[in-house]
Amino acid sequence: MPMGLRLVVVGIAGVGKSTVVQKCVSSIEGATLAVFGTAMFDAAKELRWVKHRDEMRKLTVEKQKRLQKVAAQKISRGRGRVVIVDTHLFIRTPEGFWPGLPFVVIQSLKPTHLVLIEAEPEEIVSRRENDKTRYRDMVTKEEVSAELTLARTFLSAASLVSGAPISFIRNYEGKADEAAEQIRQLVRSATA
Amino acid sequence: MPMGLRLVVVGIAGVGKSTVVQKCVSSIEGATLAVFGTAMFDAAKELRWVKHRDEMRKLTVEKQKRLQKVAAQKISRGRGRVVIVDTHLFIRTPEGFWPGLPFVVIQSLKPTHLVLIEAEPEEIVSRRENDKTRYRDMVTKEEVSAELTLARTFLSAASLVSGAPISFIRNYEGKADEAAEQIRQLVRSATA
Amino acid sequence: MPMGLRLVVVGIAGVGKSTVVQKCVSSIEGATLAVFGTAMFDAAKELRWVKHRDEMRKLTVEKQKRLQKVAAQKISRGRGRVVIVDTHLFIRTPEGFWPGLPFVVIQSLKPTHLVLIEAEPEEIVSRRENDKTRYRDMVTKEEVSAELTLARTFLSAASLVSGAPISFIRNYEGKADEAAEQIRQLVRSATA
Repeated sequence: MPMGLRLVVVGIAGVGKSTVVQKCVSSIEGATLAVFGTAMFDAAKELRWVKHRDEMRKLTVEKQKRLQKVAAQKISRGRGRVVIVDTHLFIRTPEGFWPGLPFVVIQSLKPTHLVLIEAEPEEIVSRRENDKTRYRDMVTKEEVSAELTLARTFLSAASLVSGAPISFIRNYEGKADEAAEQIRQLVRSATA
Repeated sequence: MPMGLRLVVVGIAGVGKSTVVQKCVSSIEGATLAVFGTAMFDAAKELRWVKHRDEMRKLTVEKQKRLQKVAAQKISRGRGRVVIVDTHLFIRTPEGFWPGLPFVVIQSLKPTHLVLIEAEPEEIVSRRENDKTRYRDMVTKEEVSAELTLARTFLSAASLVSGAPISFIRNYEGKADEAAEQIRQLVRSATA
Repeated sequence: MPMGLRLVVVGIAGVGKSTVVQKCVSSIEGATLAVFGTAMFDAAKELRWVKHRDEMRKLTVEKQKRLQKVAAQKISRGRGRVVIVDTHLFIRTPEGFWPGLPFVVIQSLKPTHLVLIEAEPEEIVSRRENDKTRYRDMVTKEEVSAELTLARTFLSAASLVSGAPISFIRNYEGKADEAAEQIRQLVRSATA
């Protein structure tokens, strides 16, 4: 088994996850980034199932599940000292919330640490409203609160299933550096 | 593997699940109903463990667990295009809340979609009070709220374990048709 | 498989779990106590990994995980009629909340019943403040509330994964006898 850390970092749309993840990758020594969706797309191209990224969502559920597993295996076999895995905990679809980290993916990915980025519901709603090209679904503050709870529930179940510890990191408005610093401290503890 | 959908529909006592399920079965083309408790009873009769339904609760926990598994396998091997599985997420007993969809049952049942029917705590308490022959346990609004949260937690864990997407459907008083329509839309998306 | 009951009793720091557990062990006929941490320490001594208890926390995560599994197997193979397993649901560390009952441990431990001891956030904060030698981390009422929710979420996932029923027992200030009595009733129902 590779000796490195695999930190799975998740958070619902609008918590500012991407910013925090980028800051982690550039501030943590030896850290590399693995974007789960990109790893899935790469696997799909290798299998010649797709040529372009927008073809991904047209694949059958069975094919998407297989790509999830292949991507997870590839990431877990990587040799990075600290791999930051940027992925979705769930995806809102007309069929319901699809789990992004189901049991079979967790078994392949073998995360060493689970990190949930959180923010205030008001901040999340306002970020989604201000970036309508990125966030297509309009949601109320109540729906965002429910998503935040759902995220905690999902990641806690993921922690129990994987045995990996779980951290809740609050990303306050304009304080992404502090959130990234907390993750850096976590990595320092884990490699001490 | 059979190609059909298996929608597991659950909800705590008093949310009006039965009504919604019946409306789904009659309005969704090709839908059939599988009542989990009945499938367990049928399995028990075949094994000659019981003759009458009220003997079921006298069976040992081990036997009940085996019946759960057999029922799940039978339902998952069925050939229906859309099977609506009506079951309990948990059952309140003197030994605690028994999970109706534990890991081994989920593995056998292989649900394709998980649906949680929800309602306002006040409505649930009032339905339970108005039908004392059906709902024997009297509970407070606080206990009902706790059960609703527990249901979300249990079904989220079930989603993570099974990889099936999860939907939360609100069944407003007198609007069971709308709840059923949402499930019909979900099936349409899944079969599109 | 041994025929006895294995009640896993957990609760966050400050709920008064130890008192309740002791009362259960002395009031329930045929009950024996298995302290999970002690079972891990015994296993570590047998393997000659440590001599003293304070060396435990210096072991690598891999070794600690192996000890968890060995301890779980040993407890599940015990012959007690009613084994009360006293353990941690999670442990607050600089790497996050470590799950004390991850999937692999649950599979080895094979709990028959899961019990969560709960208390009011105010009571918990006050107990932690009054016993600073035992509880090193100072936490706010909000953090305690979040821990209580996390405990419910974790144990619910454990229930789903293990198939064991889950009970929530409220330990009111000065009423540990009543909490223990509820557990005694649960055992009576299970052995009836």
